[in-house]
Amino acid sequence: MIIIGEKINGTIPSTGVAIASRDSAFIADLAVRQSEAGADFIDVCASTAPEVEVEALKWLIDIVQSVTDVPISIDSPNPHAIKAVFTDIEKPGLINSVSLEADKTEVLFPLIADTEWQVVALLCDNNGIPQTSEQRLEIARQTIDCAVGYGIAPSRLHIDPLVISLSTDQTSMTKFIHCCQEIKSWYPEIHITSGLSNISFGLPLRKSINQSFLVLAMGAGMDSAIMDPLDRDMLATLLGTDALLENDRYCRKYTTAYRQGKIGKSKN
Amino acid sequence: MIIIGEKINGTIPSTGVAIASRDSAFIADLAVRQSEAGADFIDVCASTAPEVEVEALKWLIDIVQSVTDVPISIDSPNPHAIKAVFTDIEKPGLINSVSLEADKTEVLFPLIADTEWQVVALLCDNNGIPQTSEQRLEIARQTIDCAVGYGIAPSRLHIDPLVISLSTDQTSMTKFIHCCQEIKSWYPEIHITSGLSNISFGLPLRKSINQSFLVLAMGAGMDSAIMDPLDRDMLATLLGTDALLENDRYCRKYTTAYRQGKIGKSKN
Repeated sequence: MIIIGEKINGTIPSTGVAIASRDSAFIADLAVRQSEAGADFIDVCASTAPEVEVEALKWLIDIVQSVTDVPISIDSPNPHAIKAVFTDIEKPGLINSVSLEADKTEVLFPLIADTEWQVVALLCDNNGIPQTSEQRLEIARQTIDCAVGYGIAPSRLHIDPLVISLSTDQTSMTKFIHCCQEIKSWYPEIHITSGLSNISFGLPLRKSINQSFLVLAMGAGMDSAIMDPLDRDMLATLLGTDALLENDRYCRKYTTAYRQGKIGKSKN
Repeated sequence: MIIIGEKINGTIPSTGVAIASRDSAFIADLAVRQSEAGADFIDVCASTAPEVEVEALKWLIDIVQSVTDVPISIDSPNPHAIKAVFTDIEKPGLINSVSLEADKTEVLFPLIADTEWQVVALLCDNNGIPQTSEQRLEIARQTIDCAVGYGIAPSRLHIDPLVISLSTDQTSMTKFIHCCQEIKSWYPEIHITSGLSNISFGLPLRKSINQSFLVLAMGAGMDSAIMDPLDRDMLATLLGTDALLENDRYCRKYTTAYRQGKIGKSKN
Protein backbone atom coordinates (compact mmCIF):
# COMPACT_ATOMS: atom_id res chain seq x y z
CA MET A 1 0.00 0.00 0.00
CA ILE A 2 1.05 3.54 -0.79
CA ILE A 3 0.29 5.87 2.10
CA ILE A 4 -0.36 9.55 1.37
CA GLY A 5 -0.11 11.27 4.76
CA GLU A 6 -2.97 13.75 5.06
CA LYS A 7 -2.15 15.65 8.26
CA ILE A 8 -0.70 18.84 6.73
CA ASN A 9 -4.03 20.18 5.54
CA GLY A 10 -5.43 23.57 6.46
CA THR A 11 -8.96 22.18 6.76
CA ILE A 12 -7.82 20.33 9.90
CA PRO A 13 -8.39 23.02 12.58
CA SER A 14 -5.06 22.64 14.42
CA THR A 15 -3.13 22.63 11.14
CA GLY A 16 -5.14 25.62 9.89
CA VAL A 17 -4.13 27.59 12.98
CA ALA A 18 -0.49 26.56 12.53
CA ILE A 19 -0.55 27.74 8.90
CA ALA A 20 -2.22 31.06 9.78
CA SER A 21 0.31 31.75 12.54
CA ARG A 22 3.26 30.37 10.52
CA ASP A 23 4.06 27.86 13.28
CA SER A 24 6.86 26.04 11.47
CA ALA A 25 7.66 23.70 14.37
CA PHE A 26 4.11 22.34 14.30
CA ILE A 27 4.27 21.65 10.57
CA ALA A 28 7.77 20.14 10.78
CA ASP A 29 6.61 17.81 13.54
CA LEU A 30 3.68 16.58 11.42
CA ALA A 31 6.04 15.96 8.49
CA VAL A 32 8.55 14.04 10.59
CA ARG A 33 6.03 11.94 12.45
CA GLN A 34 4.14 10.96 9.30
CA SER A 35 7.43 10.04 7.60
CA GLU A 36 8.45 7.90 10.56
CA ALA A 37 5.05 6.20 10.57
CA GLY A 38 5.64 5.08 6.98
CA ALA A 39 4.04 7.72 4.74
CA ASP A 40 5.15 7.38 1.10
CA PHE A 41 4.05 10.94 0.31
CA ILE A 42 3.44 13.95 2.58
CA ASP A 43 0.35 15.77 1.39
CA VAL A 44 0.57 19.56 1.60
CA CYS A 45 -2.69 21.48 1.34
CA ALA A 46 -2.93 25.10 2.49
CA SER A 47 -6.69 25.68 2.33
CA THR A 48 -6.15 29.40 2.83
CA ALA A 49 -7.82 32.26 0.97
CA PRO A 50 -6.89 32.00 -2.75
CA GLU A 51 -4.80 35.18 -2.75
CA VAL A 52 -2.38 33.85 -0.13
CA GLU A 53 -2.42 30.16 -1.12
CA VAL A 54 0.75 30.12 -3.23
CA GLU A 55 2.75 31.86 -0.51
CA ALA A 56 1.41 29.48 2.14
CA LEU A 57 2.19 26.44 -0.04
CA LYS A 58 5.77 27.64 -0.60
CA TRP A 59 6.22 28.11 3.13
CA LEU A 60 4.83 24.59 3.80
CA ILE A 61 6.94 22.98 1.06
CA ASP A 62 10.11 24.56 2.42
CA ILE A 63 9.47 23.22 5.90
CA VAL A 64 8.58 19.70 4.76
CA GLN A 65 11.63 19.46 2.48
CA SER A 66 13.91 20.65 5.26
CA VAL A 67 12.93 17.83 7.62
CA THR A 68 12.15 14.79 5.46
CA ASP A 69 13.14 13.10 2.21
CA VAL A 70 9.66 11.69 1.71
CA PRO A 71 8.23 13.18 -1.50
CA ILE A 72 5.49 15.78 -1.40
CA SER A 73 1.92 15.38 -2.54
CA ILE A 74 1.00 18.88 -3.62
CA ASP A 75 -2.68 19.41 -2.98
CA SER A 76 -4.89 22.24 -4.19
CA PRO A 77 -8.25 22.56 -5.95
CA ASN A 78 -6.57 25.22 -8.09
CA PRO A 79 -4.25 23.79 -10.79
CA HIS A 80 -2.64 27.20 -11.27
CA ALA A 81 -1.56 27.29 -7.61
CA ILE A 82 0.04 23.85 -8.07
CA LYS A 83 1.78 25.09 -11.22
CA ALA A 84 3.04 28.18 -9.38
CA VAL A 85 4.85 26.15 -6.70
CA PHE A 86 5.83 23.18 -8.86
CA THR A 87 9.47 24.21 -9.36
CA ASP A 88 9.92 24.75 -5.62
CA ILE A 89 9.53 21.02 -5.08
CA GLU A 90 12.91 19.30 -5.22
CA LYS A 91 12.02 15.74 -6.08
CA PRO A 92 9.23 14.10 -8.10
CA GLY A 93 6.13 13.74 -5.98
CA LEU A 94 2.39 13.50 -6.45
CA ILE A 95 -0.07 16.03 -7.88
CA ASN A 96 -3.30 15.96 -5.85
CA SER A 97 -5.36 16.23 -7.98
CA VAL A 98 -6.68 16.42 -11.51
CA SER A 99 -10.17 15.61 -12.76
CA LEU A 100 -12.08 16.36 -15.93
CA GLU A 101 -13.28 19.60 -14.30
CA ALA A 102 -12.40 22.87 -16.04
CA ASP A 103 -8.80 23.07 -17.29
CA LYS A 104 -7.16 20.82 -14.71
CA THR A 105 -5.70 18.20 -17.02
CA GLU A 106 -4.63 20.83 -19.56
CA VAL A 107 -2.71 22.75 -16.93
CA LEU A 108 -1.24 19.85 -14.98
CA PHE A 109 -0.61 16.96 -17.39
CA PRO A 110 1.86 18.96 -19.57
CA LEU A 111 3.65 20.03 -16.38
CA ILE A 112 4.49 16.44 -15.41
CA ALA A 113 4.61 14.92 -18.90
CA ASP A 114 8.37 14.34 -19.03
CA THR A 115 8.92 13.75 -15.33
CA GLU A 116 8.54 10.94 -12.82
CA TRP A 117 5.71 12.72 -11.04
CA GLN A 118 2.60 10.76 -10.19
CA VAL A 119 -0.91 12.19 -10.12
CA VAL A 120 -4.23 11.58 -8.37
CA ALA A 121 -7.17 11.64 -10.81
CA LEU A 122 -10.66 12.07 -9.38
CA LEU A 123 -13.51 10.50 -11.34
CA CYS A 124 -15.62 13.64 -11.69
CA ASP A 125 -16.12 16.31 -14.33
CA ASN A 126 -17.92 19.64 -14.76
CA ASN A 127 -21.18 17.93 -13.82
CA GLY A 128 -19.80 16.77 -10.47
CA ILE A 129 -19.59 13.19 -9.22
CA PRO A 130 -21.60 10.84 -11.47
CA GLN A 131 -24.31 8.67 -9.92
CA THR A 132 -23.37 5.41 -11.61
CA SER A 133 -20.20 3.34 -11.75
CA GLU A 134 -20.52 3.22 -15.53
CA GLN A 135 -20.33 7.01 -15.80
CA ARG A 136 -17.32 7.08 -13.46
CA LEU A 137 -15.61 4.38 -15.48
CA GLU A 138 -16.24 6.42 -18.63
CA ILE A 139 -14.45 9.36 -16.94
CA ALA A 140 -11.64 6.99 -15.96
CA ARG A 141 -11.27 5.91 -19.60
CA GLN A 142 -11.12 9.52 -20.80
CA THR A 143 -8.64 10.50 -18.07
CA ILE A 144 -6.32 7.56 -18.78
CA ASP A 145 -6.46 8.23 -22.54
CA CYS A 146 -5.70 11.88 -21.94
CA ALA A 147 -2.75 11.05 -19.63
CA VAL A 148 -1.35 8.52 -22.08
CA GLY A 149 -1.66 11.16 -24.79
CA TYR A 150 0.74 13.31 -22.76
CA GLY A 151 3.10 10.36 -22.31
CA ILE A 152 2.04 9.76 -18.71
CA ALA A 153 2.02 5.98 -18.17
CA PRO A 154 -0.95 4.42 -16.34
CA SER A 155 1.44 3.30 -13.57
CA ARG A 156 1.82 7.00 -12.61
CA LEU A 157 -1.91 7.45 -12.06
CA HIS A 158 -3.71 7.10 -8.72
CA ILE A 159 -7.37 6.94 -9.68
CA ASP A 160 -9.81 7.99 -6.95
CA PRO A 161 -13.28 6.64 -7.81
CA LEU A 162 -14.73 9.02 -5.18
CA VAL A 163 -16.83 7.89 -2.28
CA ILE A 164 -20.20 9.29 -1.26
CA SER A 165 -21.34 8.57 2.30
CA LEU A 166 -23.14 5.28 2.82
CA SER A 167 -25.92 7.13 4.61
CA THR A 168 -26.64 9.03 1.37
CA ASP A 169 -26.11 6.18 -1.09
CA GLN A 170 -26.45 2.59 0.10
CA THR A 171 -24.59 1.38 -2.98
CA SER A 172 -21.61 3.63 -2.39
CA MET A 173 -19.24 0.83 -1.32
CA THR A 174 -20.35 -1.65 -3.94
CA LYS A 175 -19.96 1.04 -6.63
CA PHE A 176 -16.46 1.74 -5.35
CA ILE A 177 -15.59 -1.98 -5.41
CA HIS A 178 -16.93 -2.28 -8.95
CA CYS A 179 -14.82 0.69 -10.13
CA CYS A 180 -11.67 -0.72 -8.46
CA GLN A 181 -12.06 -4.15 -10.00
CA GLU A 182 -12.90 -2.83 -13.43
CA ILE A 183 -10.04 -0.31 -13.64
CA LYS A 184 -7.54 -2.87 -12.29
CA SER A 185 -8.73 -5.30 -14.96
CA TRP A 186 -7.87 -2.72 -17.63
CA TYR A 187 -4.46 -1.78 -16.22
CA PRO A 188 -3.17 -3.78 -13.23
CA GLU A 189 -0.39 -1.21 -12.83
CA ILE A 190 -2.76 1.71 -12.23
CA HIS A 191 -3.06 2.70 -8.58
CA ILE A 192 -6.47 3.10 -7.01
CA THR A 193 -6.70 5.56 -4.13
CA SER A 194 -9.26 7.10 -1.80
CA GLY A 195 -9.72 9.07 1.35
CA LEU A 196 -11.01 6.85 4.16
CA SER A 197 -13.56 8.93 6.00
CA ASN A 198 -16.22 10.14 3.52
CA ILE A 199 -17.91 6.74 3.52
CA SER A 200 -19.03 7.03 7.17
CA PHE A 201 -20.40 10.57 7.19
CA GLY A 202 -23.68 10.66 9.10
CA LEU A 203 -23.22 7.25 10.75
CA PRO A 204 -22.22 6.34 14.32
CA LEU A 205 -18.86 4.70 15.11
CA ARG A 206 -17.32 6.23 12.02
CA LYS A 207 -13.90 4.76 12.71
CA SER A 208 -15.18 1.20 12.55
CA ILE A 209 -16.92 1.87 9.21
CA ASN A 210 -13.78 3.59 7.89
CA GLN A 211 -11.65 0.58 8.82
CA SER A 212 -14.03 -1.86 7.13
CA PHE A 213 -14.10 0.41 4.08
CA LEU A 214 -10.30 0.28 3.91
CA VAL A 215 -10.24 -3.51 4.14
CA LEU A 216 -12.99 -4.07 1.56
CA ALA A 217 -11.38 -1.55 -0.80
CA MET A 218 -7.98 -3.24 -0.46
CA GLY A 219 -9.66 -6.56 -1.13
CA ALA A 220 -11.02 -5.05 -4.37
CA GLY A 221 -7.60 -3.78 -5.47
CA MET A 222 -7.15 -0.35 -3.85
CA ASP A 223 -3.39 0.05 -3.29
CA SER A 224 -3.04 3.69 -2.25
CA ALA A 225 -4.80 5.74 0.44
CA ILE A 226 -4.98 9.33 1.59
CA MET A 227 -4.97 8.81 5.33
CA ASP A 228 -3.57 9.63 8.74
CA PRO A 229 -0.60 7.30 9.27
CA LEU A 230 -0.53 8.41 12.92
CA ASP A 231 -3.88 6.71 13.48
CA ARG A 232 -2.45 3.52 14.99
CA ASP A 233 -5.61 1.45 14.62
CA MET A 234 -6.04 2.40 10.97
CA LEU A 235 -2.36 1.69 10.29
CA ALA A 236 -2.66 -1.72 11.99
CA THR A 237 -5.70 -2.48 9.84
CA LEU A 238 -3.82 -1.45 6.69
CA LEU A 239 -0.66 -3.43 7.48
CA GLY A 240 -2.59 -6.48 8.66
CA THR A 241 -4.74 -6.46 5.53
CA ASP A 242 -1.66 -6.13 3.33
CA ALA A 243 -0.26 -9.22 5.06
CA LEU A 244 -3.53 -11.11 4.58
CA LEU A 245 -3.51 -10.23 0.88
CA GLU A 246 0.04 -11.56 0.36
CA ASN A 247 1.51 -8.08 -0.04
CA ASP A 248 3.83 -8.45 2.96
CA ARG A 249 6.18 -11.41 2.76
CA TYR A 250 6.35 -13.36 6.01
CA CYS A 251 4.27 -10.55 7.61
CA ARG A 252 7.58 -8.72 7.98
CA LYS A 253 6.30 -5.14 7.65
CA TYR A 254 3.44 -5.91 10.02
CA THR A 255 5.57 -7.49 12.73
CA THR A 256 8.30 -4.84 12.34
CA ALA A 257 5.77 -2.03 12.72
CA TYR A 258 4.53 -3.75 15.88
CA ARG A 259 8.04 -4.20 17.26
CA GLN A 260 8.85 -0.57 16.53
CA GLY A 261 5.74 0.51 18.40
CA LYS A 262 4.03 2.04 15.35
CA ILE A 263 0.93 -0.12 15.83
CA GLY A 264 -0.62 -1.60 18.95
CA LYS A 265 -0.96 0.16 22.29
CA SER A 266 1.00 3.39 22.38
CA LYS A 267 3.87 3.46 24.85
CA ASN A 268 3.30 7.18 25.50
CA MET B 1 -24.72 -12.47 8.35
CA ILE B 2 -25.59 -15.52 10.39
CA ILE B 3 -23.94 -15.39 13.80
CA ILE B 4 -23.14 -18.67 15.57
CA GLY B 5 -22.42 -17.68 19.17
CA GLU B 6 -19.35 -19.59 20.35
CA LYS B 7 -19.22 -18.80 24.07
CA ILE B 8 -20.68 -22.05 25.47
CA ASN B 9 -17.61 -24.14 24.71
CA GLY B 10 -15.72 -26.19 27.28
CA THR B 11 -12.38 -25.28 25.72
CA ILE B 12 -12.89 -21.71 26.99
CA PRO B 13 -11.47 -21.99 30.54
CA SER B 14 -14.28 -20.18 32.40
CA THR B 15 -16.93 -22.17 30.52
CA GLY B 16 -15.01 -25.40 31.14
CA VAL B 17 -15.07 -24.71 34.89
CA ALA B 18 -18.80 -23.91 34.74
CA ILE B 19 -19.49 -27.19 32.95
CA ALA B 20 -17.37 -29.23 35.37
CA SER B 21 -19.07 -27.68 38.39
CA ARG B 22 -22.54 -27.72 36.76
CA ASP B 23 -22.90 -23.94 37.24
CA SER B 24 -26.18 -23.54 35.40
CA ALA B 25 -26.49 -19.80 36.11
CA PHE B 26 -23.20 -19.16 34.31
CA ILE B 27 -24.32 -21.12 31.23
CA ALA B 28 -27.78 -19.54 31.23
CA ASP B 29 -26.21 -16.09 31.36
CA LEU B 30 -24.01 -16.85 28.33
CA ALA B 31 -27.04 -18.11 26.40
CA VAL B 32 -29.15 -15.06 27.23
CA ARG B 33 -26.45 -12.50 26.54
CA GLN B 34 -25.47 -14.04 23.20
CA SER B 35 -29.14 -14.18 22.18
CA GLU B 36 -29.61 -10.53 23.09
CA ALA B 37 -26.48 -9.57 21.16
CA GLY B 38 -28.01 -11.09 18.01
CA ALA B 39 -26.76 -14.68 17.80
CA ASP B 40 -28.74 -16.73 15.26
CA PHE B 41 -27.53 -20.00 16.80
CA ILE B 42 -26.13 -20.79 20.26
CA ASP B 43 -23.26 -23.21 19.90
CA VAL B 44 -23.08 -25.89 22.61
CA CYS B 45 -19.80 -27.77 22.92
CA ALA B 46 -18.96 -29.72 26.07
CA SER B 47 -15.30 -30.61 25.45
CA THR B 48 -15.36 -32.99 28.39
CA ALA B 49 -13.93 -36.49 28.56
CA PRO B 50 -15.75 -38.69 25.98
CA GLU B 51 -17.47 -40.86 28.60
CA VAL B 52 -19.31 -37.92 30.16
CA GLU B 53 -19.85 -35.83 27.01
CA VAL B 54 -23.42 -36.91 26.26
CA GLU B 55 -24.54 -36.21 29.80
CA ALA B 56 -22.83 -32.80 29.77
CA LEU B 57 -24.39 -31.92 26.41
CA LYS B 58 -27.87 -32.84 27.66
CA TRP B 59 -27.38 -30.65 30.72
CA LEU B 60 -26.20 -27.75 28.54
CA ILE B 61 -29.04 -28.17 26.02
CA ASP B 62 -31.64 -28.14 28.79
CA ILE B 63 -30.31 -24.90 30.21
CA VAL B 64 -30.04 -23.13 26.85
CA GLN B 65 -33.56 -24.18 25.81
CA SER B 66 -35.00 -23.00 29.12
CA VAL B 67 -33.75 -19.43 28.69
CA THR B 68 -33.78 -18.68 24.94
CA ASP B 69 -35.67 -19.50 21.76
CA VAL B 70 -32.56 -19.11 19.64
CA PRO B 71 -31.81 -22.48 18.01
CA ILE B 72 -28.90 -24.59 19.15
CA SER B 73 -25.74 -25.39 17.22
CA ILE B 74 -24.79 -28.80 18.56
CA ASP B 75 -21.04 -29.10 18.50
CA SER B 76 -18.92 -32.22 18.97
CA PRO B 77 -16.07 -33.93 17.13
CA ASN B 78 -17.96 -37.17 17.79
CA PRO B 79 -20.98 -37.69 15.49
CA HIS B 80 -22.33 -40.39 17.80
CA ALA B 81 -22.49 -37.92 20.70
CA ILE B 82 -24.47 -35.54 18.48
CA LYS B 83 -26.79 -38.38 17.49
CA ALA B 84 -27.29 -39.34 21.15
CA VAL B 85 -28.59 -35.89 22.13
CA PHE B 86 -30.33 -35.02 18.86
CA THR B 87 -33.86 -35.77 20.06
CA ASP B 88 -33.34 -33.65 23.17
CA ILE B 89 -33.20 -30.57 20.98
CA GLU B 90 -36.65 -29.07 20.56
CA LYS B 91 -36.33 -27.08 17.37
CA PRO B 92 -34.26 -27.45 14.18
CA GLY B 93 -30.79 -26.06 14.70
CA LEU B 94 -27.32 -26.55 13.32
CA ILE B 95 -25.04 -29.60 13.40
CA ASN B 96 -21.44 -28.50 14.01
CA SER B 97 -19.93 -30.31 12.19
CA VAL B 98 -19.50 -32.93 9.49
CA SER B 99 -16.49 -33.46 7.23
CA LEU B 100 -15.33 -36.31 5.02
CA GLU B 101 -13.48 -37.75 8.04
CA ALA B 102 -14.44 -41.26 9.18
CA ASP B 103 -18.20 -41.90 9.30
CA LYS B 104 -19.38 -38.36 10.03
CA THR B 105 -21.59 -37.80 7.00
CA GLU B 106 -23.00 -41.35 7.20
CA VAL B 107 -24.05 -40.85 10.81
CA LEU B 108 -25.27 -37.26 10.62
CA PHE B 109 -26.73 -36.67 7.14
CA PRO B 110 -29.45 -39.36 7.52
CA LEU B 111 -30.32 -37.87 10.93
CA ILE B 112 -31.23 -34.50 9.43
CA ALA B 113 -32.33 -35.66 5.98
CA ASP B 114 -36.05 -34.99 6.40
CA THR B 115 -35.74 -32.04 8.77
CA GLU B 116 -35.03 -28.32 8.58
CA TRP B 117 -31.71 -28.73 10.34
CA GLN B 118 -28.67 -26.99 8.89
CA VAL B 119 -25.13 -28.33 9.06
CA VAL B 120 -21.56 -27.02 9.10
CA ALA B 121 -19.30 -28.95 6.70
CA LEU B 122 -15.54 -28.66 7.16
CA LEU B 123 -13.40 -29.06 4.05
CA CYS B 124 -11.16 -31.81 5.36
CA ASP B 125 -11.05 -35.58 5.14
CA ASN B 126 -9.11 -38.50 6.63
CA ASN B 127 -5.89 -36.92 5.35
CA GLY B 128 -6.52 -33.70 7.30
CA ILE B 129 -6.76 -30.19 5.85
CA PRO B 130 -5.59 -30.14 2.23
CA GLN B 131 -2.81 -27.75 1.21
CA THR B 132 -4.41 -26.36 -1.92
CA SER B 133 -7.72 -24.63 -2.63
CA GLU B 134 -8.34 -27.08 -5.46
CA GLN B 135 -8.22 -30.05 -3.08
CA ARG B 136 -10.56 -28.27 -0.64
CA LEU B 137 -12.95 -27.45 -3.46
CA GLU B 138 -12.92 -31.12 -4.48
CA ILE B 139 -13.95 -32.01 -0.90
CA ALA B 140 -16.66 -29.33 -1.11
CA ARG B 141 -17.98 -30.91 -4.31
CA GLN B 142 -18.08 -34.38 -2.73
CA THR B 143 -19.74 -33.07 0.44
CA ILE B 144 -22.41 -31.15 -1.45
CA ASP B 145 -23.13 -34.14 -3.71
CA CYS B 146 -23.37 -36.39 -0.67
CA ALA B 147 -25.74 -33.97 1.12
CA VAL B 148 -27.93 -33.57 -1.95
CA GLY B 149 -28.03 -37.38 -2.20
CA TYR B 150 -29.67 -37.40 1.25
CA GLY B 151 -32.13 -34.70 0.18
CA ILE B 152 -30.28 -31.96 2.07
CA ALA B 153 -30.49 -28.79 -0.05
CA PRO B 154 -27.32 -26.69 -0.52
CA SER B 155 -29.06 -23.80 1.28
CA ARG B 156 -28.85 -25.87 4.50
CA LEU B 157 -25.06 -26.19 4.31
CA HIS B 158 -22.56 -23.87 6.00
CA ILE B 159 -19.27 -24.74 4.34
CA ASP B 160 -16.17 -23.93 6.37
CA PRO B 161 -13.14 -23.80 4.02
CA LEU B 162 -10.89 -23.98 7.13
CA VAL B 163 -8.26 -21.40 7.92
CA ILE B 164 -4.64 -22.07 8.75
CA SER B 165 -2.75 -19.29 10.50
CA LEU B 166 -1.19 -16.67 8.25
CA SER B 167 2.10 -17.10 10.08
CA THR B 168 2.20 -20.74 8.88
CA ASP B 169 0.83 -20.22 5.37
CA GLN B 170 1.10 -16.80 3.75
CA THR B 171 -1.54 -17.77 1.22
CA SER B 172 -4.08 -18.76 3.85
CA MET B 173 -6.38 -15.75 3.33
CA THR B 174 -6.16 -15.76 -0.45
CA LYS B 175 -6.94 -19.50 -0.48
CA PHE B 176 -9.95 -18.84 1.74
CA ILE B 177 -11.14 -16.04 -0.56
CA HIS B 178 -10.74 -18.30 -3.58
CA CYS B 179 -12.78 -21.09 -1.95
CA CYS B 180 -15.55 -18.63 -0.93
CA GLN B 181 -15.87 -17.15 -4.40
CA GLU B 182 -15.76 -20.49 -6.15
CA ILE B 183 -18.34 -22.23 -3.94
CA LYS B 184 -20.67 -19.20 -4.07
CA SER B 185 -20.40 -19.28 -7.87
CA TRP B 186 -21.62 -22.90 -7.83
CA TYR B 187 -24.48 -22.34 -5.40
CA PRO B 188 -25.20 -18.75 -4.30
CA GLU B 189 -27.55 -20.13 -1.62
CA ILE B 190 -24.84 -22.12 0.17
CA HIS B 191 -23.56 -20.46 3.33
CA ILE B 192 -19.85 -20.03 3.89
CA THR B 193 -18.72 -19.96 7.50
CA SER B 194 -15.53 -19.80 9.55
CA GLY B 195 -14.14 -19.20 12.99
CA LEU B 196 -12.44 -15.81 13.17
CA SER B 197 -9.32 -16.37 15.24
CA ASN B 198 -7.25 -19.16 13.65
CA ILE B 199 -5.93 -16.80 10.99
CA SER B 200 -3.95 -14.70 13.50
CA PHE B 201 -2.30 -17.44 15.53
CA GLY B 202 1.35 -16.54 16.15
CA LEU B 203 0.99 -12.87 15.16
CA PRO B 204 0.79 -9.74 17.32
CA LEU B 205 -2.41 -7.68 17.60
CA ARG B 206 -4.51 -10.72 16.80
CA LYS B 207 -7.79 -8.86 17.15
CA SER B 208 -6.92 -6.44 14.35
CA ILE B 209 -5.99 -9.32 12.02
CA ASN B 210 -9.17 -11.18 12.98
CA GLN B 211 -11.29 -8.12 12.16
CA SER B 212 -9.62 -7.67 8.77
CA PHE B 213 -10.08 -11.38 8.10
CA LEU B 214 -13.81 -11.04 8.82
CA VAL B 215 -14.16 -8.07 6.47
CA LEU B 216 -12.18 -9.64 3.60
CA ALA B 217 -14.07 -12.91 4.01
CA MET B 218 -17.43 -11.12 3.95
CA GLY B 219 -16.28 -9.25 0.85
CA ALA B 220 -15.61 -12.64 -0.74
CA GLY B 221 -19.06 -14.01 0.13
CA MET B 222 -18.79 -15.43 3.67
CA ASP B 223 -22.23 -15.01 5.23
CA SER B 224 -21.98 -16.99 8.48
CA ALA B 225 -19.44 -16.88 11.32
CA ILE B 226 -18.65 -18.80 14.47
CA MET B 227 -17.82 -15.92 16.77
CA ASP B 228 -18.27 -14.14 20.08
CA PRO B 229 -21.23 -11.78 19.61
CA LEU B 230 -20.32 -10.17 22.96
CA ASP B 231 -17.10 -8.84 21.41
CA ARG B 232 -18.41 -5.34 20.72
CA ASP B 233 -15.65 -4.36 18.30
CA MET B 234 -16.02 -7.52 16.25
CA LEU B 235 -19.81 -7.10 16.18
CA ALA B 236 -19.42 -3.48 15.05
CA THR B 237 -17.08 -4.62 12.28
CA LEU B 238 -19.56 -7.29 11.20
CA LEU B 239 -22.61 -5.01 11.21
CA GLY B 240 -20.74 -2.15 9.54
CA THR B 241 -19.42 -4.44 6.82
CA ASP B 242 -22.89 -5.86 6.23
CA ALA B 243 -24.12 -2.28 5.74
CA LEU B 244 -21.24 -1.51 3.35
CA LEU B 245 -22.08 -4.62 1.32
CA GLU B 246 -25.76 -3.64 0.92
CA ASN B 247 -26.95 -6.35 3.31
CA ASP B 248 -28.51 -3.87 5.75
CA ARG B 249 -31.10 -1.60 4.21
CA TYR B 250 -30.66 2.03 5.26
CA CYS B 251 -28.01 0.81 7.75
CA ARG B 252 -30.93 0.02 10.02
CA LYS B 253 -29.46 -2.97 11.85
CA TYR B 254 -26.19 -1.11 12.33
CA THR B 255 -27.73 2.07 13.73
CA THR B 256 -30.22 0.11 15.86
CA ALA B 257 -27.41 -1.96 17.39
CA TYR B 258 -25.61 1.29 18.19
CA ARG B 259 -28.72 2.89 19.71
CA GLN B 260 -29.34 -0.23 21.80
CA GLY B 261 -25.76 -0.08 23.09
CA LYS B 262 -24.71 -3.39 21.53
CA ILE B 263 -21.81 -1.77 19.70
CA GLY B 264 -19.70 1.26 20.55
CA LYS B 265 -18.40 2.12 23.99
CA SER B 266 -19.98 -0.02 26.67
CA LYS B 267 -22.16 1.83 29.14
CA ASN B 268 -21.14 -0.55 31.95
